[in-house]
Amino acid sequence: MSERTANPWRTLSSRVVYRSPWLVLREDKVIRPDGAAGTYGVVEIPFSCGVVAISGDNQIALVSQWRYVHKKLSLEIPTGGSAKGETPLAAAKRELVEETGLTADSWMTLGTVDNSNGVTTDVAHMFLARDLKSGASVPQGDERIELLWMPFADAVRSVMTGGITESVSVAAILKAELLGTSRPLYPPVT
Amino acid sequence: MSERTANPWRTLSSRVVYRSPWLVLREDKVIRPDGAAGTYGVVEIPFSCGVVAISGDNQIALVSQWRYVHKKLSLEIPTGGSAKGETPLAAAKRELVEETGLTADSWMTLGTVDNSNGVTTDVAHMFLARDLKSGASVPQGDERIELLWMPFADAVRSVMTGGITESVSVAAILKAELLGTSRPLYPPVT
Repeated sequence: MSERTANPWRTLSSRVVYRSPWLVLREDKVIRPDGAAGTYGVVEIPFSCGVVAISGDNQIALVSQWRYVHKKLSLEIPTGGSAKGETPLAAAKRELVEETGLTADSWMTLGTVDNSNGVTTDVAHMFLARDLKSGASVPQGDERIELLWMPFADAVRSVMTGGITESVSVAAILKAELLGTSRPLYPPVT
Repeated sequence: MSERTANPWRTLSSRVVYRSPWLVLREDKVIRPDGAAGTYGVVEIPFSCGVVAISGDNQIALVSQWRYVHKKLSLEIPTGGSAKGETPLAAAKRELVEETGLTADSWMTLGTVDNSNGVTTDVAHMFLARDLKSGASVPQGDERIELLWMPFADAVRSVMTGGITESVSVAAILKAELLGTSRPLYPPVT
């Protein structure tokens, strides 16, 4: 490995400070790139997922959810965590149906984003879901979620003007826009 | 307040589990929206910032940085945390010069993104910086950073194809693209 691709950090020891069903905080004793001793706190969060679900008439399924951390309502695409052993696509399908009741026949990846990558392990897997079917949502106990349909172009505008700020929603909606989702770019595959 | 805009959570108590110069982990005892008792772990991180710095010939200043948490090199816009009392713009200017040596005469906001908003308080403030001047970078002890200039259109392509995945970089680059940065949309203000 060249110097550029070699890990410039050394981990001397690692201890778990806190563990809950949702996150693990560990503190590592490290030697930093400059050779000094230090500590590094890492918040281990299982990967998450987010779904841009778009109807045949180019409406996007958004959810309005109270975010405890920020003490505010947040307008987002359906997002959520993952269970042990779950694949990103399985997690995305589960979150979509839990939060909106929707299932989809067509799935496409929109890649990943690394959230707060100086601190957390949270990698969010994003998907574009089409050919939607409605069903009953399955809200979890800690969620109070309202489904809202919005023209996709309006959602892009909301991202650009600060109405939508959740990082996975911002990334996924703008990626879908640049792929041409709001224009008639995705004819059904025949 | 209507039911929709009222906080559906109740916080019964709050204790700090861990405190470092970079983050505070607190655990709240809560009553969840469904009325059940529970705990909520919140990772308090000061706001962060990210800068899309674009030269007169539409090259973007990127940095390649080893990310300890993910054990990989990450290609990103200059990003960083904030010090107590710092404004978002001041933090952005400081991070830009620390990581790249660049200063800029023209600054424009690209809004904010909420990272891992189920867990962390990390809000990233994004800026578009133009009219750049070169200088000496001031790398911090825990960073080993390489400055790379790339045509802005290539950076957009890298975001779309998964070469750039850091959440603030993804959001800021795509917002700048949709504002028309890679096209001749920003003539100097006269």
